Amino acid sequence: MTTADARTPASSSDNNDKSDKSDANTVGAEAGKSIGWHKAYVEGSRPDLRVPVRQVHLTNGKAVTLYDTSGPYTDPTADTDVRRGLAPLRENWIIARGDTEEYTGRPPRPEDDGIKHTSPRGGLKNLDAVFPGRPRQPRRGRGGQAVTQLAYARRGEITPEMEFIGIRENIDPEVVREEVAAGRAVIPANVNHPEIEPMIIGKRFLVKVNANIGNSAVTSSIEEEVEKMTWATKWGADTVMDLSTGRNIHTTREWVLRNSPVPIGTVPLYQALEKVDGKAEELSWEIYKDTVIEQAEQGVDYMTVHAGVRLPYVPLTANRKTGIVSRGGSIMAAWCLAHHKESFLYEHFEELCEILAAYDVTYSLGDGLRPGSIADANDRAQFAELETLGELNTIAKRHNVQTMIEGPGHVPMHKIKENIDLQQEICEEAPFYTLGPLTTDIAPAYDHITSGIGAAMIGWWGTAMLCYVTPKEHLGLPNKDDVKTGVITYKIAAHAADLAKGHPGAQDWDDALSDARFEFRWEDQFNLALDPDTAREFHDETLPAEPAKTAHFCSMCGPKFCSMKISQDIRREHGGTPQAELDEAVAGMEQKSKEFAAAGNRVYLPIAD
Amino acid sequence: MTTADARTPASSSDNNDKSDKSDANTVGAEAGKSIGWHKAYVEGSRPDLRVPVRQVHLTNGKAVTLYDTSGPYTDPTADTDVRRGLAPLRENWIIARGDTEEYTGRPPRPEDDGIKHTSPRGGLKNLDAVFPGRPRQPRRGRGGQAVTQLAYARRGEITPEMEFIGIRENIDPEVVREEVAAGRAVIPANVNHPEIEPMIIGKRFLVKVNANIGNSAVTSSIEEEVEKMTWATKWGADTVMDLSTGRNIHTTREWVLRNSPVPIGTVPLYQALEKVDGKAEELSWEIYKDTVIEQAEQGVDYMTVHAGVRLPYVPLTANRKTGIVSRGGSIMAAWCLAHHKESFLYEHFEELCEILAAYDVTYSLGDGLRPGSIADANDRAQFAELETLGELNTIAKRHNVQTMIEGPGHVPMHKIKENIDLQQEICEEAPFYTLGPLTTDIAPAYDHITSGIGAAMIGWWGTAMLCYVTPKEHLGLPNKDDVKTGVITYKIAAHAADLAKGHPGAQDWDDALSDARFEFRWEDQFNLALDPDTAREFHDETLPAEPAKTAHFCSMCGPKFCSMKISQDIRREHGGTPQAELDEAVAGMEQKSKEFAAAGNRVYLPIAD
Repeated sequence: MTTADARTPASSSDNNDKSDKSDANTVGAEAGKSIGWHKAYVEGSRPDLRVPVRQVHLTNGKAVTLYDTSGPYTDPTADTDVRRGLAPLRENWIIARGDTEEYTGRPPRPEDDGIKHTSPRGGLKNLDAVFPGRPRQPRRGRGGQAVTQLAYARRGEITPEMEFIGIRENIDPEVVREEVAAGRAVIPANVNHPEIEPMIIGKRFLVKVNANIGNSAVTSSIEEEVEKMTWATKWGADTVMDLSTGRNIHTTREWVLRNSPVPIGTVPLYQALEKVDGKAEELSWEIYKDTVIEQAEQGVDYMTVHAGVRLPYVPLTANRKTGIVSRGGSIMAAWCLAHHKESFLYEHFEELCEILAAYDVTYSLGDGLRPGSIADANDRAQFAELETLGELNTIAKRHNVQTMIEGPGHVPMHKIKENIDLQQEICEEAPFYTLGPLTTDIAPAYDHITSGIGAAMIGWWGTAMLCYVTPKEHLGLPNKDDVKTGVITYKIAAHAADLAKGHPGAQDWDDALSDARFEFRWEDQFNLALDPDTAREFHDETLPAEPAKTAHFCSMCGPKFCSMKISQDIRREHGGTPQAELDEAVAGMEQKSKEFAAAGNRVYLPIAD
Repeated sequence: MTTADARTPASSSDNNDKSDKSDANTVGAEAGKSIGWHKAYVEGSRPDLRVPVRQVHLTNGKAVTLYDTSGPYTDPTADTDVRRGLAPLRENWIIARGDTEEYTGRPPRPEDDGIKHTSPRGGLKNLDAVFPGRPRQPRRGRGGQAVTQLAYARRGEITPEMEFIGIRENIDPEVVREEVAAGRAVIPANVNHPEIEPMIIGKRFLVKVNANIGNSAVTSSIEEEVEKMTWATKWGADTVMDLSTGRNIHTTREWVLRNSPVPIGTVPLYQALEKVDGKAEELSWEIYKDTVIEQAEQGVDYMTVHAGVRLPYVPLTANRKTGIVSRGGSIMAAWCLAHHKESFLYEHFEELCEILAAYDVTYSLGDGLRPGSIADANDRAQFAELETLGELNTIAKRHNVQTMIEGPGHVPMHKIKENIDLQQEICEEAPFYTLGPLTTDIAPAYDHITSGIGAAMIGWWGTAMLCYVTPKEHLGLPNKDDVKTGVITYKIAAHAADLAKGHPGAQDWDDALSDARFEFRWEDQFNLALDPDTAREFHDETLPAEPAKTAHFCSMCGPKFCSMKISQDIRREHGGTPQAELDEAVAGMEQKSKEFAAAGNRVYLPIAD
C-alpha cells in the first residue's frame, strides 16, 4: 500500500463528490448533493464525538444512511498517512477518565519479530520496518485497576464510547450501557488503541463481521497486511484479527494498529510460539504473559485465549475424524501432552484477567476443540470445552474483563442451533463469536459459501459476531480479492440475520434498493449495493452503453417485454388505493369470475382467498 | 461449442485415465485404477439399464462413488457428437410399454423461431440452424391416454425409469414407485425425450438443482446455450430450464433437447408471447396450446404454467414494493387486465392436463405472484396464488399428470419455513421447487449467495428442487462462469440440505474429504471437491511446487507448526482406543488435575463433563 493509496482509497467505487468538510459533516442536508455515496458524521453531545455514516444520495432526491466501518480513509477531507497513523480519537476521553497512567513499557526485542540474531530483517517491502509515527508510551489502569467498559457500565457510567455506539446503532445509550453491564455485549477498546471508532458486539445490536488477516511463515508482507486491513474495513469488516505468524509479527501489528479504525484482535499464542522457535513444549506462562503484555501495550483490543483446552479433554479428540483443527487448540494440546500437565493458560487464568483488565483488552475465549469436519460437530470434546469456557467467563467477569466466546467450525445445519443455545445458557449470554459454521466439507474453494449459510443462520439465532471465511480456506492464504469476497459474503450473512432478528431499521436498506430496482433507477441500485463496483460491472457486461443506465428495461427480458413495466401499469391503475377499496376491487373481480362460470366458462374451484 | 469439445469436455478437470470401456463399466474394481475420477456404470436388471456414477479413486486405494449428472460427455468411451445428439437410452423402454404411438407432428413454422418473413435467420454461429440429427416423429399416448410415470406408479408398476432411479439414489425402487404414486415425487420424462438419464424430484430423495439457460432478445446464441447446458450438467445440474426469448427459440430448444442427458424445462408462455410479437393482450388459449404441443412433441420434460395468476389476485399486487416480478406472472396479469377476464390458463387447465398427460410432461405450477423483495414476502397475493396452485395440483393429479409447485423468491430467513410448510399442506406434499429464496435485497452481484443461504434452509425443510441463481441475477444474462458459480453454489446448498435431512449416505462424501484433509492427501481433496479445478488452482497459488501436493503441511500454518500434525500425534497415542479405555484415560487426567489443585495449583472449578 502506498501512502497515496491510503489517502484516497479505491475512488472508483466511491463516486463521491469530494464535498468540502462542512457539507460532509451535515446529516440530512440532501439538497445540492450529487448522487453517489458520501461520508458524513453525526455529532454527539460534544464536538469530539462524531459518528461516521455512509450517506447514499439517490436520484429521486432521497438519501439513505448506512453504518460505516471504513474509517477516515473514505473521507476526502481527512488527511491520512499510513506512516503517521490515524488520529487518536479517543485519547482525550481516556485521559479525562483519570484512571490510567502512562509508563515506560516493555522495550521491544528482536525476538518479538522472530529474529534471533542481529541479521538484517527480511520480507519488508516499500515500508520501512519500524513504524515511524509519533512516539508514544503505553498506558494502563492506575494501580492495576480495571479500566474496562464493563467496569464503567457496572458503575452506571455512560462513556463517550457508549454514546458513540448509541448513535451509530440508533439505540438509546442507556441500553448500550445495560447490555455491556450485563455482559451480553462487549466494546473492544484497549486504552492503547485510541484510534478506533467505537463499536459493540452483542445480540441486541447489528450482527458484526470479523476479517482475519496475517502473514505466515510461507508468504506475504507487512505492506500487504496493512492494505488488507484497510481493504477489509472499506468493504464492511467491523473488526480485524491479525493472525500473523513467522517474522515481523510485532512490527506488522504496530503498523496495523496505528492505522486501524476498527478493533484489532490477535491470538497471542501464535507469537509466543514463534518466540520458542515453534516448539510447543517450550512454551511457558512467563513467555505467554510477556507476549500478552507486549501486545496489550501496543493496543490489541481483543485476544483469543485457548484456556478451555484442558488436559483431560485432549484424549476426547483421539477418535475424531479431524482431531484438533484450531492452531491455538493444538498448540495447547501439544503442550499438555508433552508435560502431562494441566494447561498453563487455565492455571494462570486469574492472573491473565488482571493484566487484561488494566488495558481493557477483551477476552475472546477460543474454542480450541471446535470441530473441523461435519463428522465431529457437537461432540463431547467440543461441549466439554464449552463448559470450561462458561466457567472462565464467570471468572473474567469477576475481574471486570469484557468477554466473548468463540464458536465453531464445521456444523451441519440441523446441529447449528444447539451450539448457540448451549453457549448462551452456559456462558450467561456472553456474546457468541463464530467461525462460519461451515455446513458441509465438500466444497474447498467455496467455503465462504458453505460457511456463509451457517453464519446467516447462527446470526439469526443470536450470534453477535461472525468471523469470515474466504474462498482460500483450507487451501491457502487469502489475497486482496479473497478478503473482499469473504467480507461481502459475511456482510450478506450478517444483514440477512439482522432482517430475520427483526432488527429495527434493518429492512430500510433492502426497501431502498428494491424501490430503486422497481423504478429502474440503476445508478441508485449500484450505489446502494454492498458492492457497487461489481454490480455496475456486471450490468455493463451485457448492456454497456450509458443510456442503458436510465433504460426502463434490463438484459433479462429485453426492451420488448418487461415484468416491472407491467407491474407499474397495475400500480398506475390500482396503486395508492386504500386497502378497503382494493378489497372491494378484488371482490368485484371475484364476482366477475363467477359470472364467467355461470355463463359456461370453466372455473373449477371457488376462490380460496 | 465445437464437436471436439463436446466429445471430451474439459479434460483439465477430469484427470481420468481414459480407461477402456470394460474397466469403466466395472463398479468396485479399484485395483489398478489410477487416482482421479472415473465414469462408471451400475447395471440394473437388464443390460440396457446402466446407471452412471462418478467414482473417485483415492491415493489410499479406496474409492468413493458419487451421483453423476454429466451424461455421456464425461465418458471417454462414449462416442458423442452434438450434431447427432445423444443416444435414445429410454426408447426401447417407452416402445415396450406399448401405450404410445408415433404420429405426424405439428410441422415447424417460421414463427416458432420468431421469424415473420422468409428473411435469412440471424444470430446463429458455428452451428447450422436446423438440428441435423436423425429424423424422428413425435410420440404420444395412444388414444390420448396418460402415459405418465404417475399413472404407472398408481397401477403398481415399477418402470425401468424407477429402477434406474432406485439404483441412482441407492433406495428401494418400490419406495420410488410409492413416492411417485403418492404425488410426493415426480420423474420428469417426456416420451419424446428418450435421451435422458432418469432422475427424481421429491423430498425423500437427494435435493436437486436446476440451472436456467436461455438466450434473450438482447444477447447470446444457440451455440452458447447448448454449451451452457452441457457445462451446467458437468458441474452437477440435475435439470436445465431453457428460458430463451427472442429469436430461434424452437431451434435452440431442439439442439438442447437432443443433447441433454437431464430433463429440460421451459416456460411455454415465453414462446407464445414471441408468436404475438410481445403483445400480451394478443395471447390466446389457441396460441398457447399450439406452443405447448410444439414443445411437448420436441420432448420438453416439464413446463412452468402460471395458471395460478388469476384476475382477482392482480390488484393484490398494486401496493407491493416490487409488484409482479415473474415474467410469466406479469404476462398473465397483463392479459387479465387488458381483457378484464379470468386467465385463459386457469379456464383451460383441464384441457391442458389432457395434453400433458399424453406426453408425460410434468407440471411445474409457476408462482407468478412470488415476492420480488423482502418487503413483499409471504403477502396476501403470494399465498392467494398458492391456494390456487393447490387446487390445480388436485386437478392435475386427477388427470395423472405429474406435478410440482414453484416457490419464491425473496424471503427473509424467519419467513422461509412458513413457505414450505404451507405449500406442503396446501399441495398435498407435491414436490416444492423454489428459486432461492434470496434472504436480502442488498447484494446485487452476489445473489447466488443471498439465495444460496435461503436455498439450503428451505431444502433442509423439505424442498425437493432448488432453482439456481447466478451472480448476474437482477443485472444481466449469465455467462459460462456465472453458470458454473450458480451450479456449484446450489450443489452446496443441496448437499448441506441432504446432510441436515439426514439423507442416508450423504455424509460419506464429507467424511471422505475430511479424511483426506486430515491425512494431507491433497490430490484426494481436490478430486473429491465439488470443483476440483478451482481447489487445485487456489492451493497452487500459494504453494505451486509439486512436492507441496504431498507435503504434510499447508500454507495456512507453514511447515514449522501444524495443527493436523499434532492431532495425528494425539491419535497415535490414543487413536483407535475403545471408548471405555478413553473414558478411563480422561478420568485419570481429571484425577491428575485434581492433584495439581490439591498441591496448590490453581484449578478453579470442577470439571463439568
